[in-house]
Amino acid sequence: MRTALTDLLGIDAPLVGFNRSPGVVAEVSRAGGLGVLAATMYSPEELDAQLTWIEERLDGRPYGVDLLVPGHTAPADPADLLASLQSQIPPGHVRFVEELLERYDIPKPSTPREQNPEILANLDPSGVPALLDVVFAHPIALVANALGAPPPTLVDRAKDAGVVVASLVGKPEHAARQLDAGVDVLVAQGTEAGGHTGTIATTVLTPEIVERAGGRPVLAAGGIATGAQMAAALALGASGVWCGSVWLSSHEDITPEPVKRKFLAASSSDTLRSRTRTGKPARQLRSAWHDEWEGEGSPGALPMPLQPLLTAEAWSRIDDAAEAGHTGATALESYYIGQVVGGFTALRPAAEITREIVDDCTARLRELAGLVGDPSRTRPQTVE
Amino acid sequence: MRTALTDLLGIDAPLVGFNRSPGVVAEVSRAGGLGVLAATMYSPEELDAQLTWIEERLDGRPYGVDLLVPGHTAPADPADLLASLQSQIPPGHVRFVEELLERYDIPKPSTPREQNPEILANLDPSGVPALLDVVFAHPIALVANALGAPPPTLVDRAKDAGVVVASLVGKPEHAARQLDAGVDVLVAQGTEAGGHTGTIATTVLTPEIVERAGGRPVLAAGGIATGAQMAAALALGASGVWCGSVWLSSHEDITPEPVKRKFLAASSSDTLRSRTRTGKPARQLRSAWHDEWEGEGSPGALPMPLQPLLTAEAWSRIDDAAEAGHTGATALESYYIGQVVGGFTALRPAAEITREIVDDCTARLRELAGLVGDPSRTRPQTVE
Repeated sequence: MRTALTDLLGIDAPLVGFNRSPGVVAEVSRAGGLGVLAATMYSPEELDAQLTWIEERLDGRPYGVDLLVPGHTAPADPADLLASLQSQIPPGHVRFVEELLERYDIPKPSTPREQNPEILANLDPSGVPALLDVVFAHPIALVANALGAPPPTLVDRAKDAGVVVASLVGKPEHAARQLDAGVDVLVAQGTEAGGHTGTIATTVLTPEIVERAGGRPVLAAGGIATGAQMAAALALGASGVWCGSVWLSSHEDITPEPVKRKFLAASSSDTLRSRTRTGKPARQLRSAWHDEWEGEGSPGALPMPLQPLLTAEAWSRIDDAAEAGHTGATALESYYIGQVVGGFTALRPAAEITREIVDDCTARLRELAGLVGDPSRTRPQTVE
Repeated sequence: MRTALTDLLGIDAPLVGFNRSPGVVAEVSRAGGLGVLAATMYSPEELDAQLTWIEERLDGRPYGVDLLVPGHTAPADPADLLASLQSQIPPGHVRFVEELLERYDIPKPSTPREQNPEILANLDPSGVPALLDVVFAHPIALVANALGAPPPTLVDRAKDAGVVVASLVGKPEHAARQLDAGVDVLVAQGTEAGGHTGTIATTVLTPEIVERAGGRPVLAAGGIATGAQMAAALALGASGVWCGSVWLSSHEDITPEPVKRKFLAASSSDTLRSRTRTGKPARQLRSAWHDEWEGEGSPGALPMPLQPLLTAEAWSRIDDAAEAGHTGATALESYYIGQVVGGFTALRPAAEITREIVDDCTARLRELAGLVGDPSRTRPQTVE
């Protein structure tokens, strides 16, 4: 299959596989798509090791990285910043989370935890140069920024290295600022997607972004987990697809098993957009956690970055206890996922998922042509 | 274009145009699609006249009707029922609506109004046989039920008359009860649609309903206003599309001009699902009305049918005042519309809209086949 995206990146099929598991990234690229590592949870040293591991499996095939580079560059002491932010969390919110965990009988951690590096990276721009040094020391083909338009610190280095810059857009009004920032590929992310997402559906958003992209390739994201859905994205004018949720049904994905089991049992109605995890609306699996935050006595979610600061330790405890089979933790357990979760029936190899999506898409596109006939094949009747 | 839907209904293109304006219905059918009249706002006598008017323009071409037939059949005195329901509306809600209208300086009606026939029909099943007598005296090709699975009173008469029964579904879990009720065509309505709608997007819902339809044709609804979107629906496995919102950008649509002007200026982000009009979540254009209901001092929406009883007169007054150019009424003015509203650029004839969607879809399907090549055209190299 050939589109503007396959030409730009030198890949066989216009399918990007976005995931935090190096195994998924390697398998998607090996199967002919482009694996993109969600790198926000790794320190520079960890990321360096992960990228090396991926490359050892790729035999020169292209892959990409998704970073969280803050737009602001004001120097700040991360310890001071953290303390200042923590002092802004109202005691009622702390109490609500503590009581919630007690009510579900979630065990306390045996050792105190460090704050999630993802939260710290988002607060502290001082680590960015080191992170970018690692990323651009590797032969990546594409770099994406996780939230908002990529800052010049990222775009300038990407251009120097000949690396394609991609960025996610949830509203047509935001396309212009992405193009101004120097983005090469726009990812139109519909409301049905997992994680941080807006309210506009993929069917409506994709053509709106294509119209505003000035000829640059647009990928459709949200609601794409099968060949039929990939064919629909191409019909909407996309040059390819950005798949995230579908890899949560792969063997290689590192999400805890209890969450994966909940995904396999879920229907497409079982997700919601909620601010209770990051402070911004993010689509995730509905669980007892959300019922509690919507129930009586809930103080409501705090804005980003206070809400993740408030809840990060609670989520570690819930994940650990659920992993051990704890009933209350299993009821609360959740993770980011799109509405395609309703189609998950079994865990499968990521390479098999990739090939099936692409093959089914190819077959579907050929079938669709049959609905309208092919005017170039109309031949004059043979005269007898 | 040939699909299971065009074969079933004897139409040229698998496009259903759903609208409350007889002019739109006639023009869609004349242009090769299937016009379906939203008949819930008409009395039996009015409906009889409208259907006759449509037929005079169709020269035997097929068209359809969408009804609101209550599932319950308990006899009730509509006057008593109305009084009983009105007594259930809390005085605080009545005061909130009165004060809202005062704050926006909306003029009082010169003569008292009768209750909207749509609300009465929904409450009072005693008028259903007369309505069905009218509908089945006309040569309709399709009948749809506006809310929920169609009752046997409707399905039995449709089967006797050889009329196709269609029904809207917003969740995969609801498909089975529609099939049990005897529905011939399922309409998968995504969250991006206007009016009463669920939370699952068209990209995800359409294949889920196709999988459960047991071979019956499925139409995609929600997010379909262009040929590219129609091609995407067919890619998702639909046998056609059910378009509603796009006709609000047609000349023939009877929606008040002030609302149409707001639609032309709106972006795809300017709709919301709100319970403040009917008591059930319905997608509509966001206006000052919704800001007020979400603001401080709002009592929150009542359930159906109390909320429409509470607000019907307010909406008549807002519509009338907005028509006369009143500033406050124009700020409050709104109507049901899907996210495709962001693509409206001008009012056009309904026939032109129909033909453009179908022609662009045909062209798009041919282009898509070009992405993958045609294996049947692969020829051996000529030996020189």
